[in-house]
Amino acid sequence: MNVLKVAPEALEGLLKEVRYDDKGLVLALACDHATGEILMAAWMNAESLSQTLITGEMTYWSRSRKELWVKGLTSGHTQSVVGVEIDCDGDALRFRVIQKGHAACHTNRRSCFYRSLQGGLWTVIDEPVRSGH
Amino acid sequence: MNVLKVAPEALEGLLKEVRYDDKGLVLALACDHATGEILMAAWMNAESLSQTLITGEMTYWSRSRKELWVKGLTSGHTQSVVGVEIDCDGDALRFRVIQKGHAACHTNRRSCFYRSLQGGLWTVIDEPVRSGH
Repeated sequence: MNVLKVAPEALEGLLKEVRYDDKGLVLALACDHATGEILMAAWMNAESLSQTLITGEMTYWSRSRKELWVKGLTSGHTQSVVGVEIDCDGDALRFRVIQKGHAACHTNRRSCFYRSLQGGLWTVIDEPVRSGH
Repeated sequence: MNVLKVAPEALEGLLKEVRYDDKGLVLALACDHATGEILMAAWMNAESLSQTLITGEMTYWSRSRKELWVKGLTSGHTQSVVGVEIDCDGDALRFRVIQKGHAACHTNRRSCFYRSLQGGLWTVIDEPVRSGH
Protein backbone atom coordinates (compact mmCIF):
# COMPACT_ATOMS: atom_id res chain seq x y z
CA MET A 1 0.00 0.00 0.00
CA ASN A 2 1.44 3.37 -1.04
CA VAL A 3 2.23 6.06 1.49
CA LEU A 4 0.35 9.24 0.63
CA LYS A 5 2.69 12.19 0.12
CA VAL A 6 1.47 15.53 -1.14
CA ALA A 7 3.46 17.66 -3.57
CA PRO A 8 4.54 20.93 -1.93
CA GLU A 9 2.62 22.97 -4.53
CA ALA A 10 -0.66 21.28 -3.51
CA LEU A 11 -0.32 22.23 0.16
CA GLU A 12 -1.77 25.73 0.04
CA GLY A 13 -4.99 24.60 -1.61
CA LEU A 14 -5.45 21.77 0.88
CA LEU A 15 -4.69 23.84 3.98
CA LYS A 16 -7.14 26.60 3.14
CA GLU A 17 -10.04 24.21 3.85
CA VAL A 18 -8.78 23.61 7.39
CA ARG A 19 -10.44 25.52 10.23
CA TYR A 20 -8.04 25.80 13.15
CA ASP A 21 -9.34 26.47 16.64
CA ASP A 22 -8.44 29.49 18.76
CA LYS A 23 -5.13 27.81 19.61
CA GLY A 24 -4.28 27.24 15.93
CA LEU A 25 -4.96 23.50 16.15
CA VAL A 26 -7.00 21.00 14.17
CA LEU A 27 -8.11 17.60 15.47
CA ALA A 28 -6.18 14.68 13.96
CA LEU A 29 -7.70 11.22 14.24
CA ALA A 30 -5.49 8.26 13.37
CA CYS A 31 -7.42 5.20 12.18
CA ASP A 32 -6.15 1.79 11.19
CA HIS A 33 -6.12 1.73 7.40
CA ALA A 34 -7.47 -1.81 7.20
CA THR A 35 -10.15 -1.94 9.88
CA GLY A 36 -11.07 1.74 10.27
CA GLU A 37 -10.63 1.39 14.06
CA ILE A 38 -9.66 4.65 15.69
CA LEU A 39 -6.24 4.34 17.30
CA MET A 40 -5.69 7.79 18.80
CA ALA A 41 -6.91 11.38 18.82
CA ALA A 42 -4.36 14.20 18.87
CA TRP A 43 -3.75 17.66 17.42
CA MET A 44 -1.87 19.33 14.59
CA ASN A 45 -0.98 22.92 13.90
CA ALA A 46 -0.38 24.17 10.35
CA GLU A 47 3.30 23.25 10.50
CA SER A 48 2.79 19.70 11.74
CA LEU A 49 -0.06 19.15 9.27
CA SER A 50 2.12 20.38 6.42
CA GLN A 51 4.96 18.10 7.48
CA THR A 52 2.56 15.14 7.77
CA LEU A 53 1.20 15.72 4.27
CA ILE A 54 4.64 16.23 2.69
CA THR A 55 6.39 13.32 4.40
CA GLY A 56 3.50 10.87 4.74
CA GLU A 57 4.45 10.26 8.37
CA MET A 58 2.09 11.36 11.14
CA THR A 59 3.50 14.45 12.84
CA TYR A 60 1.45 15.95 15.65
CA TRP A 61 1.69 19.07 17.74
CA SER A 62 2.39 18.18 21.35
CA ARG A 63 0.25 20.49 23.46
CA SER A 64 2.15 19.55 26.65
CA ARG A 65 5.66 19.90 25.24
CA LYS A 66 4.71 22.65 22.75
CA GLU A 67 6.71 21.13 19.95
CA LEU A 68 6.38 19.10 16.75
CA TRP A 69 6.06 15.45 17.53
CA VAL A 70 6.94 12.96 14.80
CA LYS A 71 4.98 9.97 16.00
CA GLY A 72 7.24 7.05 16.83
CA LEU A 73 10.51 8.90 16.33
CA THR A 74 11.86 7.47 19.58
CA SER A 75 9.65 4.38 20.03
CA GLY A 76 9.76 3.24 16.41
CA HIS A 77 5.97 3.08 16.44
CA THR A 78 5.54 5.36 13.43
CA GLN A 79 2.32 5.90 11.50
CA SER A 80 2.47 6.09 7.71
CA VAL A 81 -0.42 7.87 6.02
CA VAL A 82 -2.30 6.06 3.27
CA GLY A 83 -5.41 8.27 3.17
CA VAL A 84 -6.83 11.50 4.62
CA GLU A 85 -10.36 12.86 4.93
CA ILE A 86 -11.48 16.27 6.16
CA ASP A 87 -14.83 16.70 7.90
CA CYS A 88 -17.75 18.89 6.88
CA ASP A 89 -16.70 21.93 8.89
CA GLY A 90 -12.98 21.49 8.38
CA ASP A 91 -11.98 21.23 12.03
CA ALA A 92 -11.20 17.51 12.09
CA LEU A 93 -9.04 15.28 9.91
CA ARG A 94 -9.22 11.52 9.66
CA PHE A 95 -5.95 9.87 8.73
CA ARG A 96 -5.88 6.26 7.62
CA VAL A 97 -2.52 4.94 8.75
CA ILE A 98 -0.28 1.92 8.78
CA GLN A 99 0.73 1.60 12.41
CA LYS A 100 4.27 0.26 12.71
CA GLY A 101 5.34 -1.71 15.78
CA HIS A 102 1.74 -2.43 16.89
CA ALA A 103 1.27 0.31 19.51
CA ALA A 104 -0.31 3.70 18.82
CA CYS A 105 -0.72 4.40 22.55
CA HIS A 106 2.11 5.50 24.80
CA THR A 107 1.00 2.76 27.22
CA ASN A 108 2.20 0.29 24.54
CA ARG A 109 -1.30 -0.71 23.60
CA ARG A 110 -2.62 -0.86 20.07
CA SER A 111 -5.20 1.91 20.65
CA CYS A 112 -5.54 4.66 23.23
CA PHE A 113 -9.19 3.66 23.68
CA TYR A 114 -8.48 0.61 25.84
CA ARG A 115 -10.91 1.30 28.70
CA SER A 116 -14.48 0.30 27.94
CA LEU A 117 -17.63 0.96 29.91
CA GLN A 118 -18.73 -2.39 31.28
CA GLY A 119 -20.97 -3.00 34.27
CA GLY A 120 -20.91 0.68 35.16
CA LEU A 121 -17.09 0.86 35.30
CA TRP A 122 -14.24 1.72 32.97
CA THR A 123 -12.73 -1.70 32.32
CA VAL A 124 -9.37 -2.35 30.68
CA ILE A 125 -10.00 -4.40 27.53
CA ASP A 126 -6.52 -4.51 26.05
CA GLU A 127 -3.16 -5.25 27.64
CA PRO A 128 0.17 -3.67 26.72
CA VAL A 129 2.24 -5.60 24.23
CA ARG A 130 5.84 -6.52 25.06
CA SER A 131 8.68 -4.73 23.34
CA GLY A 132 9.60 -6.33 20.09
CA HIS A 133 6.10 -7.73 19.55
CA MET B 1 -28.16 -5.09 20.08
CA ASN B 2 -28.82 -3.48 23.45
CA VAL B 3 -28.62 0.25 23.97
CA LEU B 4 -26.11 1.03 26.71
CA LYS B 5 -27.66 2.99 29.57
CA VAL B 6 -25.82 3.75 32.77
CA ALA B 7 -27.46 3.66 36.19
CA PRO B 8 -27.46 7.14 37.76
CA GLU B 9 -25.42 5.91 40.73
CA ALA B 10 -22.59 4.83 38.40
CA LEU B 11 -22.24 8.27 36.83
CA GLU B 12 -19.96 9.90 39.37
CA GLY B 13 -17.34 7.16 39.18
CA LEU B 14 -17.33 7.24 35.38
CA LEU B 15 -17.15 11.02 35.07
CA LYS B 16 -14.20 11.42 37.42
CA GLU B 17 -11.94 9.80 34.79
CA VAL B 18 -12.89 12.45 32.22
CA ARG B 19 -10.44 15.31 31.66
CA TYR B 20 -12.36 18.30 30.31
CA ASP B 21 -10.51 21.03 28.42
CA ASP B 22 -10.34 24.68 29.48
CA LYS B 23 -13.85 25.16 28.08
CA GLY B 24 -15.24 22.24 30.09
CA LEU B 25 -15.54 20.00 27.04
CA VAL B 26 -14.45 16.49 26.14
CA LEU B 27 -14.09 15.16 22.60
CA ALA B 28 -16.85 12.76 21.57
CA LEU B 29 -16.24 10.51 18.57
CA ALA B 30 -19.21 8.64 17.14
CA CYS B 31 -18.29 5.43 15.34
CA ASP B 32 -20.48 2.96 13.52
CA HIS B 33 -20.99 0.04 15.91
CA ALA B 34 -20.61 -2.57 13.19
CA THR B 35 -17.73 -1.29 11.06
CA GLY B 36 -15.89 0.99 13.50
CA GLU B 37 -15.94 3.76 10.86
CA ILE B 38 -15.85 7.19 12.43
CA LEU B 39 -19.01 9.10 11.58
CA MET B 40 -18.51 12.44 13.31
CA ALA B 41 -16.41 14.31 15.86
CA ALA B 42 -18.13 16.67 18.29
CA TRP B 43 -18.02 17.79 21.90
CA MET B 44 -19.74 17.10 25.21
CA ASN B 45 -19.76 18.96 28.49
CA ALA B 46 -20.44 17.16 31.76
CA GLU B 47 -24.20 17.66 31.43
CA SER B 48 -24.46 16.34 27.86
CA LEU B 49 -22.16 13.42 28.68
CA SER B 50 -24.28 12.54 31.71
CA GLN B 51 -27.45 12.71 29.63
CA THR B 52 -25.85 10.54 26.92
CA LEU B 53 -24.84 7.87 29.43
CA ILE B 54 -28.20 7.86 31.23
CA THR B 55 -30.43 7.88 28.14
CA GLY B 56 -28.22 5.93 25.73
CA GLU B 57 -28.84 8.55 23.04
CA MET B 58 -25.96 10.73 21.84
CA THR B 59 -26.34 14.23 23.27
CA TYR B 60 -23.64 16.74 22.38
CA TRP B 61 -22.85 20.26 23.45
CA SER B 62 -23.30 22.65 20.55
CA ARG B 63 -20.40 25.10 20.71
CA SER B 64 -22.07 27.42 18.21
CA ARG B 65 -25.53 27.46 19.79
CA LYS B 66 -24.22 26.98 23.33
CA GLU B 67 -26.87 24.44 24.22
CA LEU B 68 -27.45 20.72 24.68
CA TRP B 69 -27.97 19.04 21.35
CA VAL B 70 -29.77 15.70 21.31
CA LYS B 71 -28.49 14.33 18.03
CA GLY B 72 -31.32 13.76 15.55
CA LEU B 73 -34.03 15.35 17.66
CA THR B 74 -35.31 17.32 14.66
CA SER B 75 -33.92 15.23 11.77
CA GLY B 76 -34.76 11.81 13.22
CA HIS B 77 -31.16 10.77 12.64
CA THR B 78 -30.53 9.75 16.22
CA GLN B 79 -27.54 7.79 17.48
CA SER B 80 -28.09 5.05 20.06
CA VAL B 81 -25.07 4.10 22.15
CA VAL B 82 -24.05 0.44 22.30
CA GLY B 83 -20.52 0.93 23.67
CA VAL B 84 -18.17 3.57 25.02
CA GLU B 85 -14.40 3.74 25.43
CA ILE B 86 -12.30 6.44 27.10
CA ASP B 87 -8.76 7.15 25.91
CA CYS B 88 -5.52 6.95 27.89
CA ASP B 89 -5.51 10.57 29.03
CA GLY B 90 -9.28 10.86 29.48
CA ASP B 91 -9.86 13.73 27.07
CA ALA B 92 -11.55 11.74 24.30
CA LEU B 93 -14.45 9.32 24.27
CA ARG B 94 -15.25 6.83 21.54
CA PHE B 95 -18.93 5.96 21.27
CA ARG B 96 -20.03 2.97 19.23
CA VAL B 97 -23.46 3.90 17.93
CA ILE B 98 -26.37 2.67 15.89
CA GLN B 99 -26.99 5.52 13.44
CA LYS B 100 -30.69 5.85 12.66
CA GLY B 101 -31.83 7.26 9.31
CA HIS B 102 -28.45 6.77 7.65
CA ALA B 103 -26.99 10.27 8.00
CA ALA B 104 -24.69 11.39 10.81
CA CYS B 105 -23.67 14.52 8.92
CA HIS B 106 -25.83 17.63 8.67
CA THR B 107 -25.18 17.52 4.89
CA ASN B 108 -27.27 14.32 4.88
CA ARG B 109 -24.28 12.10 4.31
CA ARG B 110 -23.47 8.99 6.29
CA SER B 111 -20.23 10.45 7.68
CA CYS B 112 -18.89 13.98 8.11
CA PHE B 113 -15.59 12.79 6.62
CA TYR B 114 -16.79 12.80 3.01
CA ARG B 115 -13.93 14.76 1.42
CA SER B 116 -10.84 12.68 0.71
CA LEU B 117 -7.41 13.79 -0.42
CA GLN B 118 -7.06 12.54 -3.99
CA GLY B 119 -4.68 13.89 -6.62
CA GLY B 120 -3.70 16.78 -4.38
CA LEU B 121 -7.30 17.95 -3.90
CA TRP B 122 -10.11 17.42 -1.40
CA THR B 123 -12.49 15.26 -3.40
CA VAL B 124 -16.09 14.48 -2.45
CA ILE B 125 -16.38 10.70 -2.07
CA ASP B 126 -19.93 10.40 -0.77
CA GLU B 127 -23.15 12.00 -1.96
CA PRO B 128 -26.06 13.09 0.24
CA VAL B 129 -28.84 10.57 0.61
CA ARG B 130 -32.40 11.60 -0.18
CA SER B 131 -34.86 12.04 2.63
CA GLY B 132 -36.55 8.82 3.55
CA HIS B 133 -33.65 6.71 2.29
